[in-house]
Amino acid sequence: MTKDAMTDNASRTPMLLPRTGIGIDVHAFAPDSDPQPLWLGGLFWEGERGLAGHSDGDPVAHAAADALFSACGIGDLGTHFGTDRPEFAGASGVTLLAEAARIVRAAGFEIGNVAVQFVGNRPKFGPRREESQRVLTEAAGAPVSVTATTSDGLGFTGRGEGISAVATALVYPAA
Amino acid sequence: MTKDAMTDNASRTPMLLPRTGIGIDVHAFAPDSDPQPLWLGGLFWEGERGLAGHSDGDPVAHAAADALFSACGIGDLGTHFGTDRPEFAGASGVTLLAEAARIVRAAGFEIGNVAVQFVGNRPKFGPRREESQRVLTEAAGAPVSVTATTSDGLGFTGRGEGISAVATALVYPAA
Amino acid sequence: MTKDAMTDNASRTPMLLPRTGIGIDVHAFAPDSDPQPLWLGGLFWEGERGLAGHSDGDPVAHAAADALFSACGIGDLGTHFGTDRPEFAGASGVTLLAEAARIVRAAGFEIGNVAVQFVGNRPKFGPRREESQRVLTEAAGAPVSVTATTSDGLGFTGRGEGISAVATALVYPAA
Ligand SMILES: [Zn+2]
Ligand SMILES: [Zn+2]
Ligand SMILES: [Zn+2]
Repeated sequence: MTKDAMTDNASRTPMLLPRTGIGIDVHAFAPDSDPQPLWLGGLFWEGERGLAGHSDGDPVAHAAADALFSACGIGDLGTHFGTDRPEFAGASGVTLLAEAARIVRAAGFEIGNVAVQFVGNRPKFGPRREESQRVLTEAAGAPVSVTATTSDGLGFTGRGEGISAVATALVYPAA
Repeated sequence: MTKDAMTDNASRTPMLLPRTGIGIDVHAFAPDSDPQPLWLGGLFWEGERGLAGHSDGDPVAHAAADALFSACGIGDLGTHFGTDRPEFAGASGVTLLAEAARIVRAAGFEIGNVAVQFVGNRPKFGPRREESQRVLTEAAGAPVSVTATTSDGLGFTGRGEGISAVATALVYPAA
Repeated sequence: MTKDAMTDNASRTPMLLPRTGIGIDVHAFAPDSDPQPLWLGGLFWEGERGLAGHSDGDPVAHAAADALFSACGIGDLGTHFGTDRPEFAGASGVTLLAEAARIVRAAGFEIGNVAVQFVGNRPKFGPRREESQRVLTEAAGAPVSVTATTSDGLGFTGRGEGISAVATALVYPAA
């Protein structure tokens, strides 16, 4: 960005103040009667029980997209990928995140970064964390960090009923 | 980073580094024996089951106010609107958010923005999202974004026992 | 702010763009058959039922550390304090937060601030909030704010099964 993008030379008032956003996404595991593949953090997890839900049910990618929309104040997943855009009905989380980043930039924002943490008993995430970050960072065109934790056996994540994810994002008004 | 990047050359004091804050608020639905009107995101929702709780039980407005206090490190809703300030006992969420913004500015901070997402099965938020954002933005005197999601039938929000909200905020030390 | 404060005059490249991070941590209360002391927000709580878990089970300190790692994209608690670093197996939350801050700075980041909110029925936090903030701020070498709320009787926190904490952090790439 240029110096002009950072300061208003006329008024000397600050510009380019970042905006923060928040995104939450939860998906239940698919029932045994309708097993699904697991997609999480933009990755396919061979041999792991899958999540139910619209598109591939990837709560990490969805929370990241929602945090971007939230930071810009331009709605949420339902606003942008709802029933009036049926072409996204079966889209992957990575596709949705890339499209969210495109929408955010078209709305006049640059993306600083996105950080997502998911809560779930499985899968074991550490060995593939960097791979997940690469895939989502490429989709967003900005750094996406992904981390994991459990809820110590408590609540629906602890009982193994589903996976939740929470994301924050920073965006900047483009000059 | 260089000193120049971090300091005002005149005063050598750091400038305009934002601070992030987080706010969480949960309210249970009021029991059938004591029905309440629903206030959510600063709006009244005709015909919807209401939430219990101090003031109007608006978790979106409360989480937003808590995120502002959190960013400044000056306490939380209990600190500022507790039993020693009985004049706020029945205040609306919008009133609490406006008062929180006043307290934050009096403490020497400017507000960048606030982003809130609530988790609940109802009400259908999309059609009134922009109205909610206008009301809360006017209360805070800074951009407030509001988004919505469900927890896919899981946990207390999925069982329809209550609504939770999570907010982030950015503030800046005033020059 | 001055132009110099926001831009690198030599290179015209943007500086000091913060990165946001998120951290979540949950611990169940220790069973009656194996009572533990309660450590929360870096403080010992006399006479309060303790939490189970690795180290002292302090979800506030752990969420703060996780948010710092998340902002930098360098992993999470499991990455840095896992089984390959047994010297941290029994470490206090304060020790882990201080070590997390050291790791973050060694990775080339300055810490802006960290904000944590915990959700739990007990202990009554207000009277010791400032003490908690002082202890964690000293550990991190940057402002840490701590706030508290309840989940209005809902979910595992409402049933008194455990305590959860959510944190956000801002970091800056060091020049
Ligand atoms: Zn989703
Ligand atoms: Zn409330
Ligand atoms: Zn922990």
